[in-house]
Amino acid sequence: MHQTEGRKRVIVERVLPELDAGRFPVKRVVGDELLVEADVFADGHDLLGAMLLYRREGETTWDEVRMLEGTNDRWRGSFSLETIGRYEYTVEGWVDHFQSWRRDLRKRLSAEQNVAVQLLIGLELLSAAIDRSPEPVCQLLSRFRDQVTASTDDAGRSALFLNARLAELADRAPDRALATRYARVLIVEVERTKARFSTWYELFPRSASPLAGKHGTFRDVERLLPRISRMGFDVLYLPPIHPIGRTFRKGKNNAPIAEEDDVGSPWAIGAAEGGHTAIHPELGTLNDFRRLLKSASSLNIEVAMDIAFQSSPDHPAVTRHPEWFRKLPDGSIQYAENPPKTYQDIYPFYFESEEWSPLWEELASVIRYWLEQGVSIFRIDNPHTKPLPFWEWLITVIRKEHPGVIFLAEAFTRPKIMNYLAKAGFSQSYTYFTWRNTKRELTSYFTELTTTELAEYFRPNAWPNTPDILPEHLQYGRRAMFMVRLLLAATLSSNYGIYGPSYELLDHEPRATGTEEYLNSEKYELRSWKLDSEDSLEEFIARVNRIRRENPALQRNETLLFHETDNEEVICFSKRDATGNVIVAAINLDVHNPQTATLHLPLEELGLETTQSYQVHDLLTGARFIWQGERNAVTLQPASLPARLFRIRRKMKSEHDFDYFA
Amino acid sequence: MHQTEGRKRVIVERVLPELDAGRFPVKRVVGDELLVEADVFADGHDLLGAMLLYRREGETTWDEVRMLEGTNDRWRGSFSLETIGRYEYTVEGWVDHFQSWRRDLRKRLSAEQNVAVQLLIGLELLSAAIDRSPEPVCQLLSRFRDQVTASTDDAGRSALFLNARLAELADRAPDRALATRYARVLIVEVERTKARFSTWYELFPRSASPLAGKHGTFRDVERLLPRISRMGFDVLYLPPIHPIGRTFRKGKNNAPIAEEDDVGSPWAIGAAEGGHTAIHPELGTLNDFRRLLKSASSLNIEVAMDIAFQSSPDHPAVTRHPEWFRKLPDGSIQYAENPPKTYQDIYPFYFESEEWSPLWEELASVIRYWLEQGVSIFRIDNPHTKPLPFWEWLITVIRKEHPGVIFLAEAFTRPKIMNYLAKAGFSQSYTYFTWRNTKRELTSYFTELTTTELAEYFRPNAWPNTPDILPEHLQYGRRAMFMVRLLLAATLSSNYGIYGPSYELLDHEPRATGTEEYLNSEKYELRSWKLDSEDSLEEFIARVNRIRRENPALQRNETLLFHETDNEEVICFSKRDATGNVIVAAINLDVHNPQTATLHLPLEELGLETTQSYQVHDLLTGARFIWQGERNAVTLQPASLPARLFRIRRKMKSEHDFDYFA
Repeated sequence: MHQTEGRKRVIVERVLPELDAGRFPVKRVVGDELLVEADVFADGHDLLGAMLLYRREGETTWDEVRMLEGTNDRWRGSFSLETIGRYEYTVEGWVDHFQSWRRDLRKRLSAEQNVAVQLLIGLELLSAAIDRSPEPVCQLLSRFRDQVTASTDDAGRSALFLNARLAELADRAPDRALATRYARVLIVEVERTKARFSTWYELFPRSASPLAGKHGTFRDVERLLPRISRMGFDVLYLPPIHPIGRTFRKGKNNAPIAEEDDVGSPWAIGAAEGGHTAIHPELGTLNDFRRLLKSASSLNIEVAMDIAFQSSPDHPAVTRHPEWFRKLPDGSIQYAENPPKTYQDIYPFYFESEEWSPLWEELASVIRYWLEQGVSIFRIDNPHTKPLPFWEWLITVIRKEHPGVIFLAEAFTRPKIMNYLAKAGFSQSYTYFTWRNTKRELTSYFTELTTTELAEYFRPNAWPNTPDILPEHLQYGRRAMFMVRLLLAATLSSNYGIYGPSYELLDHEPRATGTEEYLNSEKYELRSWKLDSEDSLEEFIARVNRIRRENPALQRNETLLFHETDNEEVICFSKRDATGNVIVAAINLDVHNPQTATLHLPLEELGLETTQSYQVHDLLTGARFIWQGERNAVTLQPASLPARLFRIRRKMKSEHDFDYFA
Repeated sequence: MHQTEGRKRVIVERVLPELDAGRFPVKRVVGDELLVEADVFADGHDLLGAMLLYRREGETTWDEVRMLEGTNDRWRGSFSLETIGRYEYTVEGWVDHFQSWRRDLRKRLSAEQNVAVQLLIGLELLSAAIDRSPEPVCQLLSRFRDQVTASTDDAGRSALFLNARLAELADRAPDRALATRYARVLIVEVERTKARFSTWYELFPRSASPLAGKHGTFRDVERLLPRISRMGFDVLYLPPIHPIGRTFRKGKNNAPIAEEDDVGSPWAIGAAEGGHTAIHPELGTLNDFRRLLKSASSLNIEVAMDIAFQSSPDHPAVTRHPEWFRKLPDGSIQYAENPPKTYQDIYPFYFESEEWSPLWEELASVIRYWLEQGVSIFRIDNPHTKPLPFWEWLITVIRKEHPGVIFLAEAFTRPKIMNYLAKAGFSQSYTYFTWRNTKRELTSYFTELTTTELAEYFRPNAWPNTPDILPEHLQYGRRAMFMVRLLLAATLSSNYGIYGPSYELLDHEPRATGTEEYLNSEKYELRSWKLDSEDSLEEFIARVNRIRRENPALQRNETLLFHETDNEEVICFSKRDATGNVIVAAINLDVHNPQTATLHLPLEELGLETTQSYQVHDLLTGARFIWQGERNAVTLQPASLPARLFRIRRKMKSEHDFDYFA
């Protein structure tokens, strides 16, 4: 064991945030402040200093900000994340001899000790500080030294040394020759705000035609944009828009053999017309697609593209690059399967091919192609069935070229794999929310997502339904359940989405009892939706999304707090933000019966005076209530509105607010 | 970002135990099994394999043991720590194509699918396994292949492939060409058993004379050894035995100026007679000291030496190596201080000296010197006032040369520093036990020590008193309190010690109200102890230490469990070991009143049948009780014995045990 500089006495440890010893970046969005903490300590009684060092990745010099000491040797500092991209940060700590000496001088004077020798030491320390200080600090410190040497008695000299201005000047250039730098440089990945706050609407363009039975087009989707915008969505996500294979095409309701006029699954990608960079001719042209992007953009909607890295047997790559598929001993190509289930209409790419590297490059070029067309959000289909290191490579490479790109991981699989995908770079992730129903399940899951290390990298995107999942609780078709599930998604998670128009039209018939598949699923056939249905949740959704837009508390997750209620059927939670916006949700999970509950709000944590009354404004109905104290009751009617979404008004006006009230 | 081998699909993460990303070793003792866990997973559905790799530090090849998959992608494996020293370990994971294929074959056969092509794939996989297998596995696998090719139908070939023996053979040489190795090699420091289980007795040799007022000697200590051994101690710790300085010598009760005949503090090390490698002449010679070591050893007692790296002004190093001390501007040498407190009789070493490296070497040579004399346990005085990196260097260097050496850190300071010293290499550490009194305090502190990451490196050594600390609760002088505090130390912590004969003789007078200093402290004067006092706890201590020796459950801490009682004054906890030894302690913390409490024992966790009666044997009194169920009451009398220490007998004999009972 070799020690190169034994005089470095400071230890810097447990720097947070840090993921897996710095192996992965933590995540933030532009405008966030990154709070960094570290244990900084040394032997003995000396005062220490600590500095947070940070820079944009690629820069060679560090910016610095002093850290402040809290309790138990924990130090804190922060810096602003002003641009998209990666920042590096680390921590440095040192023994501050000059400030230690000043502190001790004060103690010695209080104990009326002779400080003559100490003042000589002080002069040495001051001279050293002068030597290492740049102008103008150097000159200002020199002036202090001149005054000290001119002073005729110890009391006068001591007073000069204890001057606060001197301390402040010395702090500008502390002696860091023997500073200890933390062992690692850590990274924070800064994305655009939409990575944290987004509202998704998924629809099948081919069902967008106003004429039943007619194949919808991008032009049809354009006509729907105003409606989607009115509902308050800012991401429009389209299932794959590429040519669909014919070989082993699936029929309606996932029938193994398609009828002549069946349209097939959009996820069976590739046909004579082209592969992952082509557009299904019946949807329109590339120009139509670009026009759609533009129209959407004018309504502040971004189009998210589905990326499913798999091929139909008719995909051009199958013949052009047979090395990217797995060839079996009988000469056939391995189709997708999870034995005994088989999916003959899908060929997975063979990631264990010796030609994996060109394959990776080809897949990256697909993303690049669509980025060039103007897409900048990608919803990745089943990432957990492709090698995890591939995603880390792909996202890193693409993000370097296009810092604003957003990737959503559609992985419904085991927790470690879902989490790894998020660590590997996905901006957002599908969640288990779809199957979390009871108060206990929801509380435990979202507490885990928002209070554990997951909060540093896993951004949930909560979906009450998807084309693949009609969860059991929606199958009963109760309007209140559709409202409750949407509200939960929209308030528990700052990113959420629905698959529509299925959702707002309360579509709820499963293909068969015990499955989560939709009857007459759009995955295999065209659907025609009656958008003006009386039952539609359109207005309700518009209201919820407006509330999200207007209340920054709902645009983040890390302040989520669950609150006690005396009723297992009523869940209550709050979110708040730094500006003082506080939202409290109270939701009745029993969609059959009205439920009354006393909510227990921790007023102090929510920034309220415990002794004053306060106003709660139900943003769903507009009703206002005056509450006092931590416990107040609500009654929630599933027949009309099974929830309240309160904005808390901190302070009620009272006679004290009058000018003439003394 | 560059990917050198994109086909490595397995992720190996979160390997435990691991401290600070492998920066520090975890600790175990000889004979322990190291259980290693890791997250091992990959994309898709393939079966994986995982291997725990380990070797003694310095070896170039790894030993291996297969890990087993538990729930949630967590894998476990273990290996035996057979010798003292450091072992390295890491984890490797791979996709097991052959076993995945076998699993899928079974599913396909169940679904009555045609497996002709699959069997061809199986043959390829089997041939590959043959190619990479050493003899005799290679030959055995080849025989399987011959049988497969000789078989005339798919059913027969399938049966051969599904043969369990084939699976077992293939497991001997899985295909690890694309295995993923964990990013770090981790280290476990294996010490001798005494690092985990030791019973310390501290005494001042100079008070060991049977004649009051006469300076005690090593010979006197030898005469006390049988008594110490009868009490069951296996470490005899002596305060510094070096020549004591005369300059600024402290007088009785820490008087600033000593009388002519005052003996001074043993921690003011060094005089004309020598420094850290010399012996105070009044104690005896080096030969006397070595004789003491030998006599102690014959009673299975090791002598622990106090190492206080500081000097009196008379220490030879002060003149020989002025560069190791801090010189002040007036030419004087910096004495120890914590302003405004001053300790003129002590010169600290100046660790920020430019000559720090020779200083470090010199201090290491002190340890080496005493190791050569036969000492192998060192109690380090105030390590938190010397640089922390120094200790890590010193202990690492010394331990390489003397693997059996044990270091105890006498640091009573802030938690982060205490913890760091333990991480840096100290085998054992003094604790806050001395000031933890209430049930809540004791429960929370020992829960932290035994269930958090601390358990991997911080080995508590609990002391109810030390020459520096007569805690307030002992100052009332109640015998029951001395019993309670000893019992708590001896059962909560597998390492514990007392400062005697002060402790067993219930010495409890403070120098002044509000201090924790002993009146007439042995630190500054000779004391004469009435060892045959009627009140002495000698017999009680002997019994407790015998119980510790006879019950392996008390020789470790990681199984500590606190149990609910319905009385805040009664604390109840248990320890158990792998052999089935279970000890339950119930201790009355109220030393004034008898207390009755119902204990709630989680029988299943303690390895007991919940429906059967069981015997509890109070090892302190010999009394035996038959209990049934989880709740049973005890009454604890401070006037006689404020505690019970039960050994649980798992199974009561009943008529079922008779041979003729069917």
